Amino acid sequence: MTVQRVSLVTLGVADLPRSRAFYEAWGWMVRQSADEIVFFQMDSLVVGLFGLADLAEDQGRADAALGTGAMTLAQNYATTEEVDERFEAALAAGATELKRPVTAEWGGYSGYVADPDGHVWELAMNPYWVTSESGTQIPADLPES
Amino acid sequence: MTVQRVSLVTLGVADLPRSRAFYEAWGWMVRQSADEIVFFQMDSLVVGLFGLADLAEDQGRADAALGTGAMTLAQNYATTEEVDERFEAALAAGATELKRPVTAEWGGYSGYVADPDGHVWELAMNPYWVTSESGTQIPADLPES
Repeated sequence: MTVQRVSLVTLGVADLPRSRAFYEAWGWMVRQSADEIVFFQMDSLVVGLFGLADLAEDQGRADAALGTGAMTLAQNYATTEEVDERFEAALAAGATELKRPVTAEWGGYSGYVADPDGHVWELAMNPYWVTSESGTQIPADLPES
Repeated sequence: MTVQRVSLVTLGVADLPRSRAFYEAWGWMVRQSADEIVFFQMDSLVVGLFGLADLAEDQGRADAALGTGAMTLAQNYATTEEVDERFEAALAAGATELKRPVTAEWGGYSGYVADPDGHVWELAMNPYWVTSESGTQIPADLPES
């Protein structure tokens, strides 16, 4: 049985130094970088920044377009205050505000920003997810359907 | 200091049952689902499938387009054989072949497929990443630059 896992999320970006500066300004620590790529260790996952043309070429595509919002990244926090704090930090770093954090219909608290290339981040507090010993957020143990 | 983490990656999809069937056919186990969402526990990360219109609305956008390849997901494996096996499993599940796994310039082994909505997955073996005790893949301990 294969372990199901995402090892790496790669964001295709138009201007690597601009994107690196944005994420560092947002408070992210670079794990490793080279001329053409920047890696952030996000707990057990790695997020990479990579030139859009390089990413398209690596995929064997003629082209790859910028972020559309069809794939979003989310970080969950324990409190609404943390969500607000991280949201303001994103704006201060140059993110575009899509939706200010609000109490959501489903009972959580959530806001959205877009990074310089339009990649979308949700910042949320979800009272229905539980935090494991290692800090990982896991959907509460409801029966599968 | 905020822990930097991705808790959830959400894929906007045109047809939720179709996408769920695709990922289940690829061998993924559903952790939790409801009428409008499906969650897969990917080790410490959750991947969610969510209707594209719902995702756009949740983001406060007028619209969100389908996958473009500008944000890719990757799973790393320990061997090239595992990469090949998972690549064939994806095709058998209905994925579109973007690039058959090949030895890459950077020394690894990598292929790409697209899911039914165009979301891109890379399947790779990266000899320069190390596997932690918990199975997480981490870029080898080179100095930051």
